Amino acid sequence: MKALVYQGPGEKEWKDVPMPQLANSGDVIVRVDTTTICGTDLHILKGDVPAVTPGRILGHEGVGTVTETGTGVKDFAVGDRVIISCIKSCGHCINCRSGLYSHCLGDEGAAGIGWVFGHLIDGTQAEYVRVPYADNSLHKLPDGVSDVQAVMLSDILPTGFEIGVLAGAVKPGDVVAVIGAGPVGLAAMMTAGLCGAAKVIALDLDKGRLEQARKFGATDAVDSGDADWKDQVFALTDGAGVDVAIEAVGLPATFEMAVDTVRPGGHVANVGVHGKPVELHLDELWIRNITITMGLVNANSTPMLLKLVAAHKIPAEQFATHFFNFDQMLDAYETFANAATTKALKVIISRAG
Amino acid sequence: MKALVYQGPGEKEWKDVPMPQLANSGDVIVRVDTTTICGTDLHILKGDVPAVTPGRILGHEGVGTVTETGTGVKDFAVGDRVIISCIKSCGHCINCRSGLYSHCLGDEGAAGIGWVFGHLIDGTQAEYVRVPYADNSLHKLPDGVSDVQAVMLSDILPTGFEIGVLAGAVKPGDVVAVIGAGPVGLAAMMTAGLCGAAKVIALDLDKGRLEQARKFGATDAVDSGDADWKDQVFALTDGAGVDVAIEAVGLPATFEMAVDTVRPGGHVANVGVHGKPVELHLDELWIRNITITMGLVNANSTPMLLKLVAAHKIPAEQFATHFFNFDQMLDAYETFANAATTKALKVIISRAG
Amino acid sequence: MKALVYQGPGEKEWKDVPMPQLANSGDVIVRVDTTTICGTDLHILKGDVPAVTPGRILGHEGVGTVTETGTGVKDFAVGDRVIISCIKSCGHCINCRSGLYSHCLGDEGAAGIGWVFGHLIDGTQAEYVRVPYADNSLHKLPDGVSDVQAVMLSDILPTGFEIGVLAGAVKPGDVVAVIGAGPVGLAAMMTAGLCGAAKVIALDLDKGRLEQARKFGATDAVDSGDADWKDQVFALTDGAGVDVAIEAVGLPATFEMAVDTVRPGGHVANVGVHGKPVELHLDELWIRNITITMGLVNANSTPMLLKLVAAHKIPAEQFATHFFNFDQMLDAYETFANAATTKALKVIISRAG
Amino acid sequence: MKALVYQGPGEKEWKDVPMPQLANSGDVIVRVDTTTICGTDLHILKGDVPAVTPGRILGHEGVGTVTETGTGVKDFAVGDRVIISCIKSCGHCINCRSGLYSHCLGDEGAAGIGWVFGHLIDGTQAEYVRVPYADNSLHKLPDGVSDVQAVMLSDILPTGFEIGVLAGAVKPGDVVAVIGAGPVGLAAMMTAGLCGAAKVIALDLDKGRLEQARKFGATDAVDSGDADWKDQVFALTDGAGVDVAIEAVGLPATFEMAVDTVRPGGHVANVGVHGKPVELHLDELWIRNITITMGLVNANSTPMLLKLVAAHKIPAEQFATHFFNFDQMLDAYETFANAATTKALKVIISRAG
Repeated sequence: MKALVYQGPGEKEWKDVPMPQLANSGDVIVRVDTTTICGTDLHILKGDVPAVTPGRILGHEGVGTVTETGTGVKDFAVGDRVIISCIKSCGHCINCRSGLYSHCLGDEGAAGIGWVFGHLIDGTQAEYVRVPYADNSLHKLPDGVSDVQAVMLSDILPTGFEIGVLAGAVKPGDVVAVIGAGPVGLAAMMTAGLCGAAKVIALDLDKGRLEQARKFGATDAVDSGDADWKDQVFALTDGAGVDVAIEAVGLPATFEMAVDTVRPGGHVANVGVHGKPVELHLDELWIRNITITMGLVNANSTPMLLKLVAAHKIPAEQFATHFFNFDQMLDAYETFANAATTKALKVIISRAG
Repeated sequence: MKALVYQGPGEKEWKDVPMPQLANSGDVIVRVDTTTICGTDLHILKGDVPAVTPGRILGHEGVGTVTETGTGVKDFAVGDRVIISCIKSCGHCINCRSGLYSHCLGDEGAAGIGWVFGHLIDGTQAEYVRVPYADNSLHKLPDGVSDVQAVMLSDILPTGFEIGVLAGAVKPGDVVAVIGAGPVGLAAMMTAGLCGAAKVIALDLDKGRLEQARKFGATDAVDSGDADWKDQVFALTDGAGVDVAIEAVGLPATFEMAVDTVRPGGHVANVGVHGKPVELHLDELWIRNITITMGLVNANSTPMLLKLVAAHKIPAEQFATHFFNFDQMLDAYETFANAATTKALKVIISRAG
Repeated sequence: MKALVYQGPGEKEWKDVPMPQLANSGDVIVRVDTTTICGTDLHILKGDVPAVTPGRILGHEGVGTVTETGTGVKDFAVGDRVIISCIKSCGHCINCRSGLYSHCLGDEGAAGIGWVFGHLIDGTQAEYVRVPYADNSLHKLPDGVSDVQAVMLSDILPTGFEIGVLAGAVKPGDVVAVIGAGPVGLAAMMTAGLCGAAKVIALDLDKGRLEQARKFGATDAVDSGDADWKDQVFALTDGAGVDVAIEAVGLPATFEMAVDTVRPGGHVANVGVHGKPVELHLDELWIRNITITMGLVNANSTPMLLKLVAAHKIPAEQFATHFFNFDQMLDAYETFANAATTKALKVIISRAG
Repeated sequence: MKALVYQGPGEKEWKDVPMPQLANSGDVIVRVDTTTICGTDLHILKGDVPAVTPGRILGHEGVGTVTETGTGVKDFAVGDRVIISCIKSCGHCINCRSGLYSHCLGDEGAAGIGWVFGHLIDGTQAEYVRVPYADNSLHKLPDGVSDVQAVMLSDILPTGFEIGVLAGAVKPGDVVAVIGAGPVGLAAMMTAGLCGAAKVIALDLDKGRLEQARKFGATDAVDSGDADWKDQVFALTDGAGVDVAIEAVGLPATFEMAVDTVRPGGHVANVGVHGKPVELHLDELWIRNITITMGLVNANSTPMLLKLVAAHKIPAEQFATHFFNFDQMLDAYETFANAATTKALKVIISRAG
C-alpha cells in the first residue's frame, strides 16, 4: 500500500510500504477512506517532535472501513464504517478509568500517552492503518454523516470543545475570547454555545479568518493587529475582561494575550501546541484568581459531538476547504502548509472511488 | 492611639496617630486585642507593593472588640468580640454575589480588590481600626476560641485552605505536595485532610520546619535541598507524580518544583506571593493536562473553619511561636523578619490587659 | 392606590389601599408599570398557602420605576427602571452568602424564605410596592428590553432555568424531557440550550401547547395522552431513557412520568408546585442511580438571563399572550385562570400611559 | 466444590456443585479464600429479588486467589491475590465510559446492571467463582492488607462512601446524619471524614449500635426511639437541619427521618435497599431545595479506599464480628440473620487452611 512516511526533519515521502498486520487481539485494520492533515503533522516534519522517528507513517485523523478484526474485538465487524479517534484508550488503566484517555497507560506506544497514531505507531495518512484497542478507540459512523464531517471528529472538534470550552469551564452567559481562528480555534468557537457562551470573540491577525469566524459561531471579531485590540475586547465585556480566554495558536505572544484579557476569577484554556516556554507574570497574577489549563484531548466527548453532527447541529463540513485524492497527498501538504495564502482550513484527502 | 505606620520603603514607626472614625453607615470601629504580622507586610516594607503609600497603618489580621457601630450595621453591637477578615466584602457587587470576595467591587479602597486593610485603607496593627462592610467582613468570636486561635482565621487558615487545598481541587485519596513549610504552607497541610488528602508531603530546605510540618498534618517530608528530592516525591506516589502540588513560597524555583512534581491531569495551586515572573514550560506542558490556579483568598470558608477550630478539630494555636505586647511591635517585626534564625511562624501581638 | 387584595379563600378584590411606606433603610418604593399573574397566585386564592393571610396584596412579578429610596440604598435612585425579582436577598445571611437566596434568613417576612412578595409582605399586583433589600433584589432594566420581556425575568425564566435546567444538571448533548408545556415548562425549554441540550422533548396533554412548545425550544413533542407516550419518549433516546426529566406541572401523575422516563444515572428536576404528596417507588428506584431535585428559585441567574434577553438570544416576549390595564386586573385573572380555553400563557397587566 | 445455593424463597443449601469454567476470554477463575454475607442476600432468600432464580449460588463479596485466566486477561495471573468487586465492569460500554459501572451494559448478566454475582450469575459464597471482565472487576490485594479488611472493599466500604458520602455531596464542615448503624451505615460514617464532615450523627434504635458507631467515626449519637430525636439532631446543627442525611436502613420511616432532618439546600442520600415505596411530601418539599439521590455502587472508589486501608487510615477490620469456616456457612447465615441478638456486623467466612 501507499503511505506518507516521515523521513527525518524536512523530509517526507508518499511511498509503498507493507500492509499493516493485526498485532494484538483488540486490534482492527481499517482501510482509510478519508484523512486530513493537522498542524501537528507540520511540527513533526520540522523535527520538533523527537519521539517521531524516521520511517513513521504520519496522520492521526481518519475515517474508514474495517477490513479485519482481532479475536478480542466485540463492537466492530468487517465492513463497518468508522471514525478513528486521534486518542487510543485501553479502557482499564487508572487514567482511562478516570476519563483521562489522553494519558492512557495501555502498552501500545509505551509512553503513557493516548496519542499514538503518526507519533508512536503508524498513522492514518495511508491506505490502511492498524488501530489498537479498537473497541475503545473507534466510533461507528452513522448514516447521514459524511466522511468530510466525520473526519473533523477525529481530533479538531473534540480538541476545541474539551481543551478549549470544557477545560475553560465556559458556562451560560459567559463572554469567551478565542485567540486564533485556525481550525482548532474555530472548533472551539463552534462548540462554545454548547456550554452557553453568550459572546464569542474571535481574535486573529488575518481579516479573512475573522470574517469567516462568524460562520463558525463567533459573535464578534477583533483584529489583534489593531493597536487597541485589548480595549476592543474589554468593550465587549462589562469592563472587567472576558470570562474565558482560549489560546489556539501556540506562541508566547498569544498566550500573553489570553492572560491579559481574562477577568479576575476567569479561565485561560491553552489549546495551542507550543514550541517555546512562555513567561507567566505571577508577580501580577498571583492575586488575580485565574485558572490556567492545558492538555491533550481525551476524546471522550466524541460520541456526543457525533450525535450533534448527525442531528445537523454542528456544521462540521464547514472546515473542509480543499479536496485531494490519496495520490495528491503531497499537494495536500503543500496547500495546508501554506494556509496563509491558500486560505486552507482543513484539507480533505480521500481514497479514489 | 498607637499604630504601626509605613513611612516609605524600609521605614516603619510605632507612633501616635488619630483614632479612626466611622465613615459609612456599614462601618464599625474595633479595638484590636490581638494582631499578627504576615509575610506580605514585609513585602510592603521593602516597597514591593506600590499601592501602599507612606502614612498607611499596616496589618490585615486581627481579633478585637467592637466599640462603635454605624447606623446600617445589623449583626454587630458594641462589646462583640470579633475576628477581622483580611478580605472585606460589600456583599452585593457582581463578584461578591458569586463568592469572589477577593475582588469585591465595593467602593472602599476603590480598586476592585477585597484586601484593603494595611493596603488601601488603614490596617489592624493599631489599637483601633475602622472596618467597612462590617456585616460581611467580621465574624463573631464564639466562647472557647482564644484570640490566638482566632487570629489565624483572619488570613492564613482560609488562605491555605481556599487557595491551596480547594483551588488545588484536593479530593479523597489524593497525594498532595506542599512546597514551603512556612505559615501558609502549614495552613494548607493542616486543612488538606478536610478534602481527604491521603498523603501530604512537606517540602522545604529547613529540616526544623520539615520536622515541625508533621505536627501540622504532613504525613511525609522531603528536604528539597537533597539532590534526589524529586525521586523521593515520586517514590511516595504511584510513580506518576502527585495529584496536587501547592506552591507556598513565591519564587520561580519553587513554582517550577510544583509543576515538575504534578502528574498528568493534576493541579498546581499557587499560594505564594511572587515578586518576579516565572517561566512556564508550555512547550512540555501543553500535552500534560494540568491545571494551574492562583489567587487571593475569598475568606468565604472562614465561618466553616471557625467552627472546626471551636470544635478542636483544627489546632490553630500551633502557629503561634512568639508573644508580644503592642508596645513591643517593633520587636515582633524583628522576630518575624528573622524567622530563619528565630524559628518564628506567627508572632502574636496583644493589647496589654 | 389600587391593589389586588386577597380576602380569604376564593375571594379577591381590586381595591383602594394605603400607599406603601419605606420601612427600613434598604427599602425602595417602586411604581409598578407592568405585572403579571403566576400559577402560584391561583393556588393562594384557593387557600392552599395558609401563610398568606387576608388583606395581603398578591403578586411577585413586576417591572417598574423607583419613586423613593431608603437611606441605605446604594445602587438605585429615583427614576430608575427596575425588574423586581420574586426573591428578596439580604445578601449576608449564611444562605445568601452561599447563593441560596431562596432561603434568605433576612428578617423581612421572618420565615427563612426568599419569596416574600404577595406571600409574607405585600406584592406587585398594585400600583406601588415596597421592595426590601433593594440593592440585592432589584435589577436595572437596560435600554432595549421591553417591560413585557423584563417581567418574565421576575420569576418564570430564572425558575425554569435554575430549578429545571441547572438543578437537572443538563449538560452538552443531553436529551431532556419537559413534562408540562405551561409557562414554567416553556421557560425550561427556552433555556435548556444554554446547557447544551441536544433534544428537548415537550410532553403535554394539550396539542396546541405541544405545537407552541417548538417555538420555545422543544425539538420534539409527545402527547402524554397517547397510550404509547413512554415508548415515543424512549424512541427519541438511545433506548435507555432521557438524561434529564423536568416536571413542570405539580401532580403525582406527572412526577411519576418524570421518574419513569429517566435513564439510570439521570436527573429528575421537579419545578411544579405540588398540593399532594407523591409516591416514590424506592423499591424499584434504589438501584437506578437517579437524582431528584426540587426547590424555589434563587434568582441568581437573573442578571445573566437579562443580558441574553437584551442580546436578543432569549425571546422572552413570546410568553405574553394577553394584555390588560391595571383596571382590568380581574379580567386578567379570569383569562389566566381559564388558560385551557383562553390559551393564555402569561397575561400582561400594565399601568395606563 | 461446595457452594451456598438459593433453592427458592426461604430455601438455601450448602452443597456440591460443578466447578466454574472460563466462559469468555476476559474471565478468570478465583478460588475464594474469604467471603461474607450482605443484607441483600437475606432479601434474596426471602424471595424479594425475583431476578434471582433457584439454583443460583449467592454472594457478591469475596477475596481470593486466581487459579485460571482467560486468554484476553492482561492484568492478572494465576496466583494473584484479589478482591472481587461486587460490580463488574466491561470498561467500554457507554455507562462504563462515564464511570457508571453500576449500570454496565456489557453482556454478562444481560440486564444492564453491574451487580451480577449472586444475582444474575453465580456468586462468591462458594469455593470457586468465575469472574467476568476480570481486568476491570478485580483489584490486586497488596501486602499488608488482610483478607478480613479486604473483603469490606467488595461492597460495603465503597457503597457507604459512594452512595452515602459522595452522592450526598458531603463537603468540608458539613453536619451529616446517618440513619441506621448497620454495616453500610457504619461504612458511611467511617468515610464521611474523607469529604470533611465536621459532625457525623449516628441514629439508630439500638443503643449498643449507637455506642459502637463512635468507633466508626460518629461524633454524636441519637437514639431514634427517643420522642425528641429530631430536636436532638437539630440541636447539633445551627438549627436549620443537617447538611446531608444518609438513609442506611431501607424503610419508609427511616427515609422520612432523612427527609425531615435535612436543611434547605441539603442532600438526602439513600443507601438502603427498599422493599416498599415511600411517600415523598412534595407538597411541603417542592420549596425546600433539597436533592435526593439513590443508587447502586459503581465501585470506582475501590482502588482509592484500598490504598487508605493499606495505609491504616481506614480500620476496615472493625466490621468483622464473627468468624466461620466454609463448612459453617449455614451457621454464619444464622448469626448474620439474627444480628439484633448476635450483635453481628459482618460475618467472615474463610477457607480452612
